[in-house]
Amino acid sequence: MWGIILNHNSEIGLARQIFLSFKERILTGQIGPGETLPSTRELAKGLDVSRNTVCDAYDMLWTEGFIITHQGTPSRVADGLQIHPVRRNEKVRKTDKNKPIIVWDFKTGQPDLELFPWQTWNKIISNAADSLSKRQLEYSGPKGYETLCEEIAHWLLRSRSMKVDPEDVFITSGATQALHLLVDILYKEGHTFALENPSHPGIRTVISDKKYNFHLMNVDSQGADVSSLNGKNISAVYVTPSHQFPLGGILPATRRADLIRLAMKENFYVIEDDYDSEFRYCGSPVSPVYSMNSSHVIYVGTFSKTMFPALRLGFAVLPKSLQNKWKHYRNYMDVQNPILEQAALTEFLRQRKMDKHIRRMRHAYGEKRNILLNSLKKAFGDSVCSWGDASGLHVALQFPGYEFGGQFILACKNAGIRVFPLTKYCFSRNDHRDKLLLGYGHLSSTQIQEGIKVLQQLIMGK
Amino acid sequence: MWGIILNHNSEIGLARQIFLSFKERILTGQIGPGETLPSTRELAKGLDVSRNTVCDAYDMLWTEGFIITHQGTPSRVADGLQIHPVRRNEKVRKTDKNKPIIVWDFKTGQPDLELFPWQTWNKIISNAADSLSKRQLEYSGPKGYETLCEEIAHWLLRSRSMKVDPEDVFITSGATQALHLLVDILYKEGHTFALENPSHPGIRTVISDKKYNFHLMNVDSQGADVSSLNGKNISAVYVTPSHQFPLGGILPATRRADLIRLAMKENFYVIEDDYDSEFRYCGSPVSPVYSMNSSHVIYVGTFSKTMFPALRLGFAVLPKSLQNKWKHYRNYMDVQNPILEQAALTEFLRQRKMDKHIRRMRHAYGEKRNILLNSLKKAFGDSVCSWGDASGLHVALQFPGYEFGGQFILACKNAGIRVFPLTKYCFSRNDHRDKLLLGYGHLSSTQIQEGIKVLQQLIMGK
Repeated sequence: MWGIILNHNSEIGLARQIFLSFKERILTGQIGPGETLPSTRELAKGLDVSRNTVCDAYDMLWTEGFIITHQGTPSRVADGLQIHPVRRNEKVRKTDKNKPIIVWDFKTGQPDLELFPWQTWNKIISNAADSLSKRQLEYSGPKGYETLCEEIAHWLLRSRSMKVDPEDVFITSGATQALHLLVDILYKEGHTFALENPSHPGIRTVISDKKYNFHLMNVDSQGADVSSLNGKNISAVYVTPSHQFPLGGILPATRRADLIRLAMKENFYVIEDDYDSEFRYCGSPVSPVYSMNSSHVIYVGTFSKTMFPALRLGFAVLPKSLQNKWKHYRNYMDVQNPILEQAALTEFLRQRKMDKHIRRMRHAYGEKRNILLNSLKKAFGDSVCSWGDASGLHVALQFPGYEFGGQFILACKNAGIRVFPLTKYCFSRNDHRDKLLLGYGHLSSTQIQEGIKVLQQLIMGK
Repeated sequence: MWGIILNHNSEIGLARQIFLSFKERILTGQIGPGETLPSTRELAKGLDVSRNTVCDAYDMLWTEGFIITHQGTPSRVADGLQIHPVRRNEKVRKTDKNKPIIVWDFKTGQPDLELFPWQTWNKIISNAADSLSKRQLEYSGPKGYETLCEEIAHWLLRSRSMKVDPEDVFITSGATQALHLLVDILYKEGHTFALENPSHPGIRTVISDKKYNFHLMNVDSQGADVSSLNGKNISAVYVTPSHQFPLGGILPATRRADLIRLAMKENFYVIEDDYDSEFRYCGSPVSPVYSMNSSHVIYVGTFSKTMFPALRLGFAVLPKSLQNKWKHYRNYMDVQNPILEQAALTEFLRQRKMDKHIRRMRHAYGEKRNILLNSLKKAFGDSVCSWGDASGLHVALQFPGYEFGGQFILACKNAGIRVFPLTKYCFSRNDHRDKLLLGYGHLSSTQIQEGIKVLQQLIMGK
């Protein structure tokens, strides 16, 4: 109890041992000033010693001024005794020291958290906490909160014209977990996964860690070249058809049809990662590949960009053929998501707060996008062309003739700006060397304008 | 938008297409009575059609009585239009029908949620939600919330006399995720995992799914027989030394020393799963194997039993040698836990609410345990002996001469009682056939007494 271990064979008396243990904890700050010690009765019981022994120990602490005791009130630790600083302070200092000062951080996949309706959300959270039933606080299984699955199905219909059976919706801890699970579930000996190149490093890393084979599809301004899949022994194909990451192309209907035909013929699955299609700025929304075929397509969505990353909520829409295997793997991976966020998100969707939030953000991001494109035009004129700027929270910039390597990134860091060379997302470091990736959704108009000016100086040397 | 896809080449006019889409959604209940339709301006923009077209569509809906419109207020869906019942009702009926009526459910690992301080917890939750910073709502990395790691280190010292560096504490989604990650991290080609037999099926399932080898250690009343490890090519050993699951033995100091010596000699890791040592009813608390050697022992803890399962919070205390690999794997598995529960648990520990709750529960569970043991004595006299009843929320019962198989379990089900034959946790269905496992922590005194009476009738046929 309280980390006190008594040695009954020691020549040091038990009371003294208790005294010394508390003394050490007080001096090291493990027990802070003002903190109350357990009652003598409680501690005696916990340590299985007589109450007198504990009283003696407390007397020693009191005599040496480690604790303050008043008749009838619990003993408290006196002030100003701590010798070593508490770890917390150390850590804060340490991390701050190591962190480079980045003023203009064009990191990708980061929503603008200033514009999220926190008051509404926090109210929904505490209502949800108050209204959860005891049964909901037990294990409720790997599929996820049923009512949330239903609301997500409705949301997919409202926002993407997707017709989805809630039975097929499976809640996950973000898209990352969905992709990790799918690699385990879809692996077939002697077969290979197909990925876009360039692409997000996530799923590729999981596949490499497991030493599974993968085939890379080249990506052009229209997305993945699916023709390269013919003749390969494919187990699953990972694509971002609504807004290819990072190059931003929209997979054209013909390529989609080819992909589906092949999937049906060779009987493999298509993993459709739809990470940001909510934010489309021109033209009508892109409909998902899932709508063309729901038996061979797995649709993966996330709330990390529409809500916030630390929510850890995403989902997968699964063909029936995969659902039992999914439940088994999820059950032994981490069982389920916490119930609280699931219940709160259900309300957020049911009350149409999501619809309102998305409308607002589409407008806000659209304005930031215009500011970014204008600043780029002003800074670089025709020497830059932007890829995939019609939707999402990032844009890929091509500077024909330039090459962006480690040198450039270092220069950026020193100038207080963070941008990512596209090679970071390529399998070979020699691809797309003339391109940079800029995430802008989380930045203010001023930050965007200033940042592009700095970028201009670094690239044009002006 | 709103799942409406317009076909510009159809001979059906655009307004009529919009009308029909809404009509279908209203009749199927996808848009419920009283729900507001988007404004004509908004919808026209979303569908990229003239506002007149939308107004015509709304007029049709109004004329046919699908919506109610008042000057200046948004159009709402009229009542009593829905033809098909909404899925939710269907589901409730379905699940209820399939569920067998179990009156006395002696399932294991289930805490008593009635006694959890919900008011305190929910208050802490909503305070935490209000006080989270924007940065905390972004991705904060795979280790977990630093302040929580510190509070857990303090808690381990107070509750188990464990001295732990917060730098070594890694937050997980329950112990399940910790064990899943450890299998990936500790796998060594040509080596084998060692498990207790009987044991919780969790980690064994993960290992079998990955087709990794495992060696089974027999378990007696003192826990695992570690001597069988000699000469095997071990990559990691999974043990439950404080309260073997399910047989309840405490691993004696000599076996612990042997295990550690071997781990250091052969350089493998010991996974110590401490799932319920908070609840010890007699004698002084069992100190963890981790305290003997922190370089070769991984300590895994959970809050599913001390708090509640749907919280999804646990942790692992990791040797430095494994920390980078852990971070990598967790990062690509699901990145991190949600921040909200982490921040709230930090406060729950900091304010010592946990200490108070555990004291209360130890007392409550202790009473239930006495009631269980007395009822057993009364019902079975000397023909039953109980294993591992000195701590935890379950007990293993041995009925020498009896054999519990599928027949018996079916009889139990029909009698409205659920108990588990111990063979369920054995690798071979022939081991421990004379034992039953009963979880009692979540049951009321009456339920326990009644349940044991029913069990008596089933076993003694009285």
